[in-house]
Amino acid sequence: MKWAIIGTWRMAIEGVTESAVDLNNGAFAGDAIEKAIKIVEDFPYYKSVGYGGLPNENCQVELDAAYMDGDSLSIGAIGGITDFKNPISIVKKLSENTYNCFLVGPGAEVYAAREGFQRENMLTDRAKKYYKKRKNETLDKGLSPYEGHDTVGVICVDKNGKMVAGTSTSGLFMKNKGRVGDSPISGSGFYVDSEVGGAAATGLGEDIMKGCVSYEIVRLMKEGLTPQEAADKAVYELDSKLIRRRGKAGDISVVALNNKGEYGVATNSEGFSFSVAVEDEEPTVYTCNKMKDGKTIYEIASKEWLKAYADRIKAPLTFD
Amino acid sequence: MKWAIIGTWRMAIEGVTESAVDLNNGAFAGDAIEKAIKIVEDFPYYKSVGYGGLPNENCQVELDAAYMDGDSLSIGAIGGITDFKNPISIVKKLSENTYNCFLVGPGAEVYAAREGFQRENMLTDRAKKYYKKRKNETLDKGLSPYEGHDTVGVICVDKNGKMVAGTSTSGLFMKNKGRVGDSPISGSGFYVDSEVGGAAATGLGEDIMKGCVSYEIVRLMKEGLTPQEAADKAVYELDSKLIRRRGKAGDISVVALNNKGEYGVATNSEGFSFSVAVEDEEPTVYTCNKMKDGKTIYEIASKEWLKAYADRIKAPLTFD
Repeated sequence: MKWAIIGTWRMAIEGVTESAVDLNNGAFAGDAIEKAIKIVEDFPYYKSVGYGGLPNENCQVELDAAYMDGDSLSIGAIGGITDFKNPISIVKKLSENTYNCFLVGPGAEVYAAREGFQRENMLTDRAKKYYKKRKNETLDKGLSPYEGHDTVGVICVDKNGKMVAGTSTSGLFMKNKGRVGDSPISGSGFYVDSEVGGAAATGLGEDIMKGCVSYEIVRLMKEGLTPQEAADKAVYELDSKLIRRRGKAGDISVVALNNKGEYGVATNSEGFSFSVAVEDEEPTVYTCNKMKDGKTIYEIASKEWLKAYADRIKAPLTFD
Repeated sequence: MKWAIIGTWRMAIEGVTESAVDLNNGAFAGDAIEKAIKIVEDFPYYKSVGYGGLPNENCQVELDAAYMDGDSLSIGAIGGITDFKNPISIVKKLSENTYNCFLVGPGAEVYAAREGFQRENMLTDRAKKYYKKRKNETLDKGLSPYEGHDTVGVICVDKNGKMVAGTSTSGLFMKNKGRVGDSPISGSGFYVDSEVGGAAATGLGEDIMKGCVSYEIVRLMKEGLTPQEAADKAVYELDSKLIRRRGKAGDISVVALNNKGEYGVATNSEGFSFSVAVEDEEPTVYTCNKMKDGKTIYEIASKEWLKAYADRIKAPLTFD
């Protein structure tokens, strides 16, 4: 069967590229997901995932992650864990449990320590600078400090047709202590079924949870929609519903992949990008645009866009 | 419009009965849900919800709860909170937030304390006795200690057609510290949309999360199925899928209600009961049976059944 791997955002490309090599060599989808996401977690300049992730209101980096096996439907998830190096490895291990698959806060840390996972202070000097700046500009002036967050969500199908989904994030910048978003929530941040396909979401978790968008995409693919049709339909219907009921909708972006290696994406906002590799397609970054007719279009990221991105994430911070 | 309120298990009947009076007098669905669930939380002999709930592996009572408004789709949720008297009131308040709607562990406690919610040591002497007995019988002998848990999940439609869902539980008895089940998970433990209906689940959270059963029931009702048809279809399809993929399925039971005040229930296990009151139906406890043809039947709980229940929950504990 045809292998494929797709991840949210430009930041997934290094991981997708490395895992693509493994998948081509016959790697198991779960190992490909773990490797791809670990690479994102470990890179200090990605400020919404793992090491270097932006902290909560107390300047603590609290991490959410999940792993789902599309054959057994087994799930591992953690919410609000502090100071462990690779959340994705912890949730992969947790997915082997029959009970106690979703652990939060200090309980998740007790588990991770007991299982021998590596501790690490996940707060970088650069993240601390962002925190101080944001605090100055917002909290200290009585303004709302919250900013959209970028989860890495990756879906993979391997040569044997097995599918796995994984997510990892430091969540909403300046979030309340203990805040959990959609990333560890089955059906909202992720869902996968090897008999159909999988999806993962990024954006405002509080709004994504209101529509179980990842579950809905997989369900629509099961009904026969392509990943692109399913992603567009689920995202724009939820977006419209939120606007109708609440007057507004937070950012919602998704990637979807079926078990034939076909993929699709949708976004209700500006600036979404994604990274994908398929057996017969080189690892590529695409940038997306939301169209007025409820469809998402995407194109290969330009060299200029990629350079501007690389410059931006490493730009010197001019504040202390 | 016709008001109605339905809750999982026999334990919901006192709350359902009191809220029925309020709903008949024109109460708001959210207040009816809060009152009904508070009554369950406060009753010390219900050992799976609130005060008197059974503790985790460390003999701490950790509570999960959620609240969802079917008009705005706003959600409030907490996971693994310790020593607050009424989780349902905390999540109702949290649902008013735009950000930070789902809080876990110590962060949830910081929020609840800041908002003035009442602290209380939720561990009763009776729950401690259960813990010691279970520990003796299982952990101390190297056996798995986990037991199915009973969440109270309540769905309500008020005279104005507004719908609300609420859940509250102490979770799996002897669970790992920080374990979160389906009860605070949108789409799994609960879902409600005033334009359609709502559903809430109880059983093995780890398995309920694998199928987003509450979201699926609401979706099926939107397609035109009655609450009973939707509940049966969603539960038995998930049950079959889990057996096919994993060889077994944990307990899954649900209650469903549409915005016309029609209700339905489904269970894949023995012993499920529920409590319901509708504008033209007295508050009543029903006991359920799963049939071989993928249908759930129920009948009014007999006086003998109700007496045996009352005797059992207050029976003296013969162990120390």
